[in-house]
Order: sequence, then structure tokens, then C-alpha cells
Amino acid sequence: MKEQDKETLKTNEGMRTIPSSLNPHLRHRKRPKSLSLEQYVEGIKKGDHIILSKAITLVESKHPKYQEQAQQIIEACLPFSGRSVRIGITGSPGVGKSTFIESLGFSLINEGRQLAILAIDPSSQLTKGSILGDKTRMEHLSKSEKTFIRPSPSGYTLGGVARKTRETILLCEAAGFDTIIIETVGVGQSEIAVHSMVDFFLLLLLPGGGDELQGIKRGIVEMADLIAVNKADGDRLTLAKKAKRAYKNAIHLLPPKASGWNPPVVLCSGQEHIGIIEIWQKIQDYIQLSTENNFFQKRRKEQASYWLHETIEQQLKQQFYNHPDIKDKLPEIKEAILKGRLSSFQGAELLLKLFGK
Amino acid sequence: MKEQDKETLKTNEGMRTIPSSLNPHLRHRKRPKSLSLEQYVEGIKKGDHIILSKAITLVESKHPKYQEQAQQIIEACLPFSGRSVRIGITGSPGVGKSTFIESLGFSLINEGRQLAILAIDPSSQLTKGSILGDKTRMEHLSKSEKTFIRPSPSGYTLGGVARKTRETILLCEAAGFDTIIIETVGVGQSEIAVHSMVDFFLLLLLPGGGDELQGIKRGIVEMADLIAVNKADGDRLTLAKKAKRAYKNAIHLLPPKASGWNPPVVLCSGQEHIGIIEIWQKIQDYIQLSTENNFFQKRRKEQASYWLHETIEQQLKQQFYNHPDIKDKLPEIKEAILKGRLSSFQGAELLLKLFGK
Repeated sequence: MKEQDKETLKTNEGMRTIPSSLNPHLRHRKRPKSLSLEQYVEGIKKGDHIILSKAITLVESKHPKYQEQAQQIIEACLPFSGRSVRIGITGSPGVGKSTFIESLGFSLINEGRQLAILAIDPSSQLTKGSILGDKTRMEHLSKSEKTFIRPSPSGYTLGGVARKTRETILLCEAAGFDTIIIETVGVGQSEIAVHSMVDFFLLLLLPGGGDELQGIKRGIVEMADLIAVNKADGDRLTLAKKAKRAYKNAIHLLPPKASGWNPPVVLCSGQEHIGIIEIWQKIQDYIQLSTENNFFQKRRKEQASYWLHETIEQQLKQQFYNHPDIKDKLPEIKEAILKGRLSSFQGAELLLKLFGK
Repeated sequence: MKEQDKETLKTNEGMRTIPSSLNPHLRHRKRPKSLSLEQYVEGIKKGDHIILSKAITLVESKHPKYQEQAQQIIEACLPFSGRSVRIGITGSPGVGKSTFIESLGFSLINEGRQLAILAIDPSSQLTKGSILGDKTRMEHLSKSEKTFIRPSPSGYTLGGVARKTRETILLCEAAGFDTIIIETVGVGQSEIAVHSMVDFFLLLLLPGGGDELQGIKRGIVEMADLIAVNKADGDRLTLAKKAKRAYKNAIHLLPPKASGWNPPVVLCSGQEHIGIIEIWQKIQDYIQLSTENNFFQKRRKEQASYWLHETIEQQLKQQFYNHPDIKDKLPEIKEAILKGRLSSFQGAELLLKLFGK
């Protein structure tokens, strides 16, 4: 509730963002005046960053009332969503993601594009946001009026973060952002979530001898539509070129993509603004190819279907494993299975019967 | 029921396996005399192939009564199961799996081992068994008394086939088989199922330039504990050596295995019995290493836990998607999502509410 209050305060000009309990103007108010559904939708459609922010806060809220309001806003915004290029960017910590995005972002703004930058970082509930949490890491972009930056929602499991981010994409698109960047860290599960909500997936790697691939899960390399060897500047250029060759060989062994696209391996430097425009050109080439061969539209539909089934199946599992009787009985049954007194299938059936009651 | 009858007939000496409807001895009997639980369990523990076969037929039956009987047999056999080496063998059609298994099987029998050969072939419901269906493909082994061969159960989904096979493993182990080979075809999902029920996973490949890896899914190569280039004989030897080098390079790029084992790449010929004993030696080396570092036991426990959760989750999904209301409403909601009138999450929630009623 406090978060909610703080967020609202930002819209009241002249007021500073201080906790409501310390704010004398709020002492006698039970709750801040909230916007109507129409005000939200109109504000978003006009591209009002503050109203968009407030709406995303509703999306991220765990309060049933705000959740319901959020769903109404999303439903009203749906017809205006979808018209953007969604780009996923991943790479291990230290690869220079923020600097790369800052550099790419400026090229995009110079072309007149409206840019929203979101993050999926399931670790943020522990670290309070290891990526994008600190806006100063994208110092220049965060000051641009054509850019909207939103850190990863915290306090959710990966499934929750993914859902909130996907809903935020819809709102950003309705607000007129035509380019959505979703940043994530190279840790595995979150990449799969990001990959299933973007049109183009970009993997950043560091210069090195090729063995670095071992740090990145194989599946992530397979998902990449482009591999960029970042920090390819100064003394690191020779090493970067060597890495590029190694990654090219590795990617050559992968099965061909359903999109008909051959993922390029390129050199770049976010710091020195080298190779960034070329990467943006590649992304545009991909969008053109995949729109022409209809893969772009097909993939968006597959993603919508994926999230429908994924949500259903996650919820079913959650309902099952959170059921008091199951919570109570599961450890005992697992023990019996591990000790060889019960087969896995018999154990499953006992629990399913219990759940069915 | 007819299958049931046929199976029973085999135990009545002197009678041929003919359909009950054509068998005058059965005309006046309503159903064949069945064995008691004790008779099944004692028969299995004595290693009686015919009783084992009958028990597996119960396991594979879809009739609730027989299923219940099967579960009782499994429960009684559980304490005597587990003492075997479980080996998964996969490879594309044409790679020479049957000939390879026949050759490996003979080496094992010569060492005094008791061998059970099972199959997981989800396609068998369509093709009526493309692997192991025709026992003549393992002509010599099928005549050996120390070998028990059982084709893939048909009429089930992959999940069903996997479950039946895992239960059959337990019965075979209780019957004294100390080496279980599970054969499958290189098509993807079935490999994951086999991998999650074996101790050692062997991938057979054909001689070639290395591009063949593209035919086999990357994930399957990652699962392999040993890659054998089969048909490395005669004119193909040079090509096979080249393939071995290419696969070695490819495998080098993969992340290290949790078992601490480095998967070897070897040449062999099932036809000419070349390299087979060496492969068996590698399997024994692996078993020794993984038993010593406790990975073997740990993995078996993980597999038991995997099948518990996998069964639960498959059943939950099945219950959901087979629910008449869901079947009725799903197409409509999917349509609304694909047309952009409903978000994936809203659609999921509508269906979950319907299911919860």
C-alpha cells in the first residue's frame, strides 16, 4: 500500500515522494484519489509516462482490487498494442549490457523511434534489482523523454515476473512505444521466458577463445538471432575477432532456424559506439524477412498460445502443491519412494486422489 | 481381452497361440484362469519368463481390474528391484541399433549377465512397432534363454509408454535381470523419457563429415554418456574416423557433466563385432566412477522424484484439458486471444475459473 501511495504522490505536482505516514498532507486522507479506467486508458494512449507508470504499478500490485483494475486497463489497451518490435537482450553479468543498450538506444532515438526498456530479473527479489534497478547505469537514456525505463518487478517468482513484463509490453505499445527492449541476465530460465515474448533475441558475449560458450547454456545460443561480441575495442580487438570465428563455427553446427534466418555473429563496442548501427540494421533485416515469409505473425500467435497454456499449467501446479493436504503428505510419500517402498507412479496416484477429494 | 487370452494361452503347454474365439478349448470358458498375486510374485522372483511376460501384459493393460492387479505385483516386487545397470540406446533409423544390440547382447551373455531388452517407441501405435516389433531383427538374442525381449507397449501416448516401461524395468529387475537395455529412436521427446530412467545413455551415429549432428537434436548429444560411430568397417572406416574427430570437437564445446564423466567418442561395428567389448568396458568404467562418487545413487533418486512430479503434472494437465467445459470453451478463448481481443493471461484465468467450479 505504501508503494501505491508513493507512486500516486509523484503525479501530484509539488509533492515530494515521501512515505504517506510522514506526509502531513496525507495524514487525514485514507487513500489517494485514484484515476478512473477512462483516465488511465486515455493517458496511456496519449503516451503520458506518469500515467503509464501508475498503470504498470497496478499491474505489479498483489492487491486483488488493483489487479482487477489492471486487467481492465489491459483489456482496454489490447486493441492498441502489438505494433512494435520486441527485442530481447541477454548476456552474463559484466558483458556490458547497460552500456550496449544505452548506445543502441541512442541510435534508435536518433531515428525517431520511441523506446521502452524493461527487464526480467528473477534475482531482483533478493538483490533488489541487479539490472536496471539503478537508472544511473543508463544515465543519458534515462533523461530522454522518448525513452521509458522500467526495472524488473520484484517480489515475484520468474513466472510472475514474466507475466507482469508481458502485460507491461502491451501497455507500452498502447502508449506508442514502437521499440521494446527486454533485458535479462544469462542464467537460463529467464532467457526462455524472454525469448517467448520477443521477436528478436540478441546474445552479448565477451571476447575470448571460444571456451566462453561453456558459461552460457547451450540452449541460449540456440535461441539467439544475433550474437554480438561486445567490448571489441582497443587491445581486445584481436581476441574479439578470434572469438567471433569460434562462435561462428559453433553456430554453424546448430540446426537451421524455422524463421529462415541465419544468425550473424558480429563485433561491437557499446562503449565506443562501434558496430551498433550495423546491429540495428540486422534487426531490421530480420523483421523484413520474417514479416515477408509470415514467420513474424506466426511466432506472435505461437507466443500468445504458449502463454495461455503456460499460465494454465503453472496455476494448476501451484494449486496442487499449495493444497494443505498435499503439503502435508508429500514429504512422507517422497520418502517412501526414495526408500523404494513405493513406486513413483503409485505415489503420484495417492497424491492425486487426495487432491481430487 | 483377446490379448489377455492369447497371453494366457502361452502358459498352457501344448496349446498354440490362436485367438480364443477360434480355440475350441476356450469356447465354453468365460475367461482363462488367472494367477494369484503370490503366484505372479514367486514366478517373477524365480525368473520365469512366461510369468514375467504375463505380468507385463497386466502392466500394459488398460482394464482397471488388471491395472490394479499390476500395481499390487509391482509393489510386491519393488524390494527386489533396482539391482541392475540400465542402459539407454538411441540413434536415427538406419544407424544399426538392432545389430548393435544383438552384438552387445552376446558379449554380455558371454560374461554371464542376464539381459532384458525393452523399447520406447511412441510411434509404434501408428506403425505397429518400428523397433523391436519384429523379433527376427535380433534373431540370435531372441533365442537365448538368458535374454528377455519385450517390444514397446502400443496404444499409449509417450507418457504412457514411458510409465509402462519404467514399471517393466522394476519387474525385470525383480526377475533377476542385471542388465536392462532400453532402445529408442532418435526423435526427441522419447530420448528425454529414456534418459530419465537409465544410468547410462549411449548415442549411435553414422559415419560422415560431422554435419549429421544436425539430424540429431542438440539436446540428445548433450545427454549422451558415450557416442559410438557405428558401421565403422570396410570402406566406411576413413569416413568413420573423420566423423569421430568432428563429434569429439563438438562434444568438447558442451558443458561438463555433473557425473564427472567425460563422454568418449568411439568407433564400432555391430555387424563385424568391432569395438563392442570396448564399449561395454567404458560402461563399466562409468558405473564404477559414478558409484564411487555417489552420482549413480543420487541420479536414481532424482529420477524417482522426477517421475513422481512428472506423473502428477501430466495427470493434472490431462484432467484439465479433458474436462468437458474446458474442451467446449478452449477453442473460443484461443480464438479471442489470437485475434487480440483477450490477453493470454485473462484467457487462462477464465478457463481456470471454469475448471474450478
